[in-house]
Amino acid sequence: MSVFEGFLSTSETLAAFSEHHFVDAMLRFEAALARAQAQVGLIPESAAQSIVGSCKVELFDVAKIVRDSGRAGSVALPLVKSLKEAVGLFNADAVAYVHFGSTSQDVIDTAMALVTREAVSLVQADLAKAAQALLRHAEIHAITPILARTLMQPASVTSFGLKCVGWAAPLVRSRDRISQAARCALNVQLGGAVGTLAQMKGQGSQVRRHMAEALGLGDPGATWHTQRDEWVALGCELGIMVGSLGKIAKDISLMGQWEVGELAEPSEPDRGGSSAMPYKRNPVAAMAALAAAERAPQRVAALLQAMSQEHERALGAWQAELGEWPQLLMAAHGSVRALAGALPGLQVDAARMRSNIDRLRAELPRDAADEWFDPALAVPAGEIALAQALVLQARLNPPQLAR
Amino acid sequence: MSVFEGFLSTSETLAAFSEHHFVDAMLRFEAALARAQAQVGLIPESAAQSIVGSCKVELFDVAKIVRDSGRAGSVALPLVKSLKEAVGLFNADAVAYVHFGSTSQDVIDTAMALVTREAVSLVQADLAKAAQALLRHAEIHAITPILARTLMQPASVTSFGLKCVGWAAPLVRSRDRISQAARCALNVQLGGAVGTLAQMKGQGSQVRRHMAEALGLGDPGATWHTQRDEWVALGCELGIMVGSLGKIAKDISLMGQWEVGELAEPSEPDRGGSSAMPYKRNPVAAMAALAAAERAPQRVAALLQAMSQEHERALGAWQAELGEWPQLLMAAHGSVRALAGALPGLQVDAARMRSNIDRLRAELPRDAADEWFDPALAVPAGEIALAQALVLQARLNPPQLAR
Amino acid sequence: MSVFEGFLSTSETLAAFSEHHFVDAMLRFEAALARAQAQVGLIPESAAQSIVGSCKVELFDVAKIVRDSGRAGSVALPLVKSLKEAVGLFNADAVAYVHFGSTSQDVIDTAMALVTREAVSLVQADLAKAAQALLRHAEIHAITPILARTLMQPASVTSFGLKCVGWAAPLVRSRDRISQAARCALNVQLGGAVGTLAQMKGQGSQVRRHMAEALGLGDPGATWHTQRDEWVALGCELGIMVGSLGKIAKDISLMGQWEVGELAEPSEPDRGGSSAMPYKRNPVAAMAALAAAERAPQRVAALLQAMSQEHERALGAWQAELGEWPQLLMAAHGSVRALAGALPGLQVDAARMRSNIDRLRAELPRDAADEWFDPALAVPAGEIALAQALVLQARLNPPQLAR
Amino acid sequence: MSVFEGFLSTSETLAAFSEHHFVDAMLRFEAALARAQAQVGLIPESAAQSIVGSCKVELFDVAKIVRDSGRAGSVALPLVKSLKEAVGLFNADAVAYVHFGSTSQDVIDTAMALVTREAVSLVQADLAKAAQALLRHAEIHAITPILARTLMQPASVTSFGLKCVGWAAPLVRSRDRISQAARCALNVQLGGAVGTLAQMKGQGSQVRRHMAEALGLGDPGATWHTQRDEWVALGCELGIMVGSLGKIAKDISLMGQWEVGELAEPSEPDRGGSSAMPYKRNPVAAMAALAAAERAPQRVAALLQAMSQEHERALGAWQAELGEWPQLLMAAHGSVRALAGALPGLQVDAARMRSNIDRLRAELPRDAADEWFDPALAVPAGEIALAQALVLQARLNPPQLAR
Repeated sequence: MSVFEGFLSTSETLAAFSEHHFVDAMLRFEAALARAQAQVGLIPESAAQSIVGSCKVELFDVAKIVRDSGRAGSVALPLVKSLKEAVGLFNADAVAYVHFGSTSQDVIDTAMALVTREAVSLVQADLAKAAQALLRHAEIHAITPILARTLMQPASVTSFGLKCVGWAAPLVRSRDRISQAARCALNVQLGGAVGTLAQMKGQGSQVRRHMAEALGLGDPGATWHTQRDEWVALGCELGIMVGSLGKIAKDISLMGQWEVGELAEPSEPDRGGSSAMPYKRNPVAAMAALAAAERAPQRVAALLQAMSQEHERALGAWQAELGEWPQLLMAAHGSVRALAGALPGLQVDAARMRSNIDRLRAELPRDAADEWFDPALAVPAGEIALAQALVLQARLNPPQLAR
Repeated sequence: MSVFEGFLSTSETLAAFSEHHFVDAMLRFEAALARAQAQVGLIPESAAQSIVGSCKVELFDVAKIVRDSGRAGSVALPLVKSLKEAVGLFNADAVAYVHFGSTSQDVIDTAMALVTREAVSLVQADLAKAAQALLRHAEIHAITPILARTLMQPASVTSFGLKCVGWAAPLVRSRDRISQAARCALNVQLGGAVGTLAQMKGQGSQVRRHMAEALGLGDPGATWHTQRDEWVALGCELGIMVGSLGKIAKDISLMGQWEVGELAEPSEPDRGGSSAMPYKRNPVAAMAALAAAERAPQRVAALLQAMSQEHERALGAWQAELGEWPQLLMAAHGSVRALAGALPGLQVDAARMRSNIDRLRAELPRDAADEWFDPALAVPAGEIALAQALVLQARLNPPQLAR
Repeated sequence: MSVFEGFLSTSETLAAFSEHHFVDAMLRFEAALARAQAQVGLIPESAAQSIVGSCKVELFDVAKIVRDSGRAGSVALPLVKSLKEAVGLFNADAVAYVHFGSTSQDVIDTAMALVTREAVSLVQADLAKAAQALLRHAEIHAITPILARTLMQPASVTSFGLKCVGWAAPLVRSRDRISQAARCALNVQLGGAVGTLAQMKGQGSQVRRHMAEALGLGDPGATWHTQRDEWVALGCELGIMVGSLGKIAKDISLMGQWEVGELAEPSEPDRGGSSAMPYKRNPVAAMAALAAAERAPQRVAALLQAMSQEHERALGAWQAELGEWPQLLMAAHGSVRALAGALPGLQVDAARMRSNIDRLRAELPRDAADEWFDPALAVPAGEIALAQALVLQARLNPPQLAR
Repeated sequence: MSVFEGFLSTSETLAAFSEHHFVDAMLRFEAALARAQAQVGLIPESAAQSIVGSCKVELFDVAKIVRDSGRAGSVALPLVKSLKEAVGLFNADAVAYVHFGSTSQDVIDTAMALVTREAVSLVQADLAKAAQALLRHAEIHAITPILARTLMQPASVTSFGLKCVGWAAPLVRSRDRISQAARCALNVQLGGAVGTLAQMKGQGSQVRRHMAEALGLGDPGATWHTQRDEWVALGCELGIMVGSLGKIAKDISLMGQWEVGELAEPSEPDRGGSSAMPYKRNPVAAMAALAAAERAPQRVAALLQAMSQEHERALGAWQAELGEWPQLLMAAHGSVRALAGALPGLQVDAARMRSNIDRLRAELPRDAADEWFDPALAVPAGEIALAQALVLQARLNPPQLAR
């Protein structure tokens, strides 16, 4: 990871996709596989116990596994090799049952689903926080008049509350769509060498079911080695969320221009400073969200491009997807974390919003000023805002039934 | 449109997004707007009648409208101007009610939704046809043995039926997801100048509801001028479908290599010929689907990139989206039409599939041949295939209840 | 082409890549081929004359050729078929010499090079015009003080002249780099069926040389059927130019905000109006350039992606490139034409630039105001600007030696 | 960095862009700045000595600097802060001269140029190695007959040597173009707060010149804070190279299919194994190059997209570029290193190439077989190959003049 992910990603997602954590997830797959296979009688219980006992990331030289992946062309090969060595130290008979009937892609895809689940949780929590903050601003500023601007020119008057609702609505929708997409995408991968689970003698689908339960992932009912549609659909939803956040960040950066002066990101020591000018404060949350909005679309394009995967396992395309995926999640969380941090304390200058309107009115013919730039136009806008905020609020925090 | 869309798109989608058809859709918006506004008493009934009566595309100089859009920076401006002139010829009093309370983006986005609905219908019909053809092959060849290949190398034996099911599953899922996404995305756009429907005196949302009904689109309950998430989500689904089709086309092109010889596209006169070699036949359906799979991801990236839209109407980003959208739909239909045409008559050479296995077996040590390349491995694969095909079939053609 | 290219592309590039013009270019290829082959004695002079005589686009049903390309999977097949029919009407013996020893890709790639040459000329002329306009503004406003802004916040004072030089420099460099890239890329394609020119009995390279001369293209000395690096390099240069223009448009759109008020695009009747608000004027040149800046990167990505072309002619990737290429050129010219039109008459409000500085100074502590926002800082900035403008001017208009 | 870069990138480029190495490069900038400013008398010699003496990466807590970059929104801020602390320990008077007259972007862009220079060197060395290996194969197999294939179907006979020359030519051209682009792009960045070098009292350009010499970078004669064309042009060239390598990898993967059997990657223990099937060997060099060919185009698109940078420093776009750039270089080197490793030992099966031709001939009518699939067609193809190889060889290894 280059030095720049320090401010474009988050420490939590950097950790989630770290080498150490990914190897740990692969070991959780191997342990769950052994356990499930013992459960259905495919491998001896004692072998499963030995395998499970060795699946502790602390026992492995993670850096070496990663280093050896270069020559092997897969990180699963050195992992399985190391695991067999570890198991063999205590129970030579169990070695043959390590990774039994499985394949590289099974362990890698499942591990990716496991760490992705964590990253998606982080995203969803911050997404709710950002949306909630916006709905709060929408209520407070429901009828605060502000210039509406189209094609970068003042066009009429709206309310700041309606702007906030417009920002919030896609986030609330994204939260639901991401939940839905994650439910479909976060599945165990188990197909064996070519997707037929041939070595598991008809018990493969039961093994998969057990593993899904144990790992808290879905059972897709089939192999998805080269059917990546549901996986990529989750990626698309994250890309859309980043786009919606990018729109908010764009608006904040525009409204935060000194010449406009309607908004500012909250202030903190050492935040958004300048190495040249000590008095200056930069909108660093918007910066992170805008940077993500430049990067995420290309990640999504790479995922889509990589869907043309050959036969039962792709050469190049699958590996490209593996490389792109973590970076999409990192950018996505970098974006939503930045705005979830900044939006609650957003500094709203209602007086400046009003004075911008007044200054424009002074430049216009009276009838144009009254038709298009009457501050009272904020009132009906505010009514729309409040009605929509109510709907969004209910969707964001569904009322709990008494039990 | 360049000369190459002749074989990369389809004549139906070229027509759907043609200048003529788009101007017609804009006129349908203007007519529906006038009708709805008369219904709620915002404009006189007589004005509405005059406007509706003039909203006939035959009355307009479409080429001039498009030509004038260059200077105006919007195709809505010359359209509205022409419509006012047309209305004024018969009813001068009605001119002021043309396009009343609306804005360029309202008419353009709604027209785009109208023509997109047609294109999506075309896509869905061909998607069902392609999936159906694959499920039929899956049944016929449920236990036909074929080499499974991973990382471009023979890896074991599977059944051709299971390959077909693997191809079909994402198409069946895409069909459902596209339906769902289209339901959310194909909405009327009506916000007036800045999204507040200010000129419609509190009746804007009722006007929008009437228009939605009349035009057969959804009523989003809000403006989506710069909230493009649901629209882009539909684009993403189309991109995913193209990716899944690209995978099929990739496999067909590989299995159709002369050295492999397991599949061929159906033959027709003048289809896939060579200008140099008369005996040669090229897989032109796979070609179209593969070309789309190279192009669609970039269209999706452009849509995502264009989501950072400023304030109440974007400068550049919205217009970029308008340019990219039709091309995504054209590529998407080009892809699915090509495969829907080729898959039903796909020429499957089961004997060659078998002889490829036999030739490989002959090269391998006996035990490896028996463990990994036993043609009997197709039988359990076929069982999986049939079970999954049943599920997919039910999802593709849900049983109709007797009424 | 969808209705939106009317304001995102230009009529000249739409014409250059039109079906009619492309078919004409293919016919120019066929005529040049026949002539060159007669010259070296490969085909009879009388056959060449018949072929050349039939290579008139007026004689062909262009729409039918395009329509038939769908089934054929190539626009060259129906073209060659039609040409043979046309030639056969007058000289049955010449039919066998039509397209002799050549292949679809030869005629299509060469035709694309021919029409691209025209589009590149258009681009280069407008690029010079845009750069020239900027250098003129740089001279006039060399020491006009203006706020410099970093991370969207005022940072210090620079001169508007230096901003103009900063805008101009990449354009001047792009002009040179595009020239250079076009020289390398605009080549005849001639390889015959598989790049060996086998049917031309050792005279293929001489035929190619003659054709290059006749058509005014380069002779690459080899086939480039699946070696697209120089072609794509030209595409990249166009993408870079669009990016540099996008930066200018972005700045103009920001400086043209009503709250900033430092710049405005020149005014014209019917230009940049609003369908809702008659008084409003939108920066439509910036809009076109910004839209192109969202689209062109994706076109370039598609070209790069399409470089993994199989063997001696790609299935899908080449065709995708053919589809993307014209759109890149159209977007590129749309962008540079828009700015070449707007920059000469750009309305520069030096007084407002100054008053923005003064208003900021009034808000700052005196020492910060004097250290960072002294209008006199424009003077040394202006010196830099003038020195650089001189260099750029010389590069843009190299002094002509007396002859 | 995720676990997958272990086999998609190279350890050398991972190191070049590591946090430690980048901070070191930033310190080299600060040292060179102080030295150059002392040279022209802008800062005291003693201050420069203290600063230079503290610019040792071992003295810094790199992890903390990266961690603090999150809040600061820039990695330069915590670096400069730490450096001031370090300098202050020994020479309090020198603190004010640390980073004097410079800005975050100066140090970051220059550091990026420094580490990029190293990465480009690695790329160029491996590019030469890959091209050289191909030219050697071209000579050896100049007239070895092989099926030529168009649109994934056998089309005629060519020579394997001509295929190799076709693979090599773009690499040789890329090497030259990358050199040229690097010469233009690898420049010192020095503009001060807003690009005017205002604090350096007219000596800024001399300071830049001194720094360029000391650091071995170019002096661009101007600031390029938001003029990224030459920088992105280098990125494009790397993208093109990855595309050309992708084409080679695609062909190798196709020719290495068991059913084709014409090529194999060299064999090594633990290389390209399978976790499921011990006998299998996967083409892992092609895999890495193909994965890069899916990823690099998107990196280039992101760079192009990020060119619309606002005013004197962009909010979001510059930071996005910083994030994408190292990944492009890593992917690029991952690709060329993989092929430079595999190509010299590529296993060429000329007998199989011939038997594939013979088998096809046996299936065709005699005249078609003789016209299009005569193995003797390899001879003229070989002549072309040798002639072109000579030219490429001379370009790759220009003859040294005696001195």
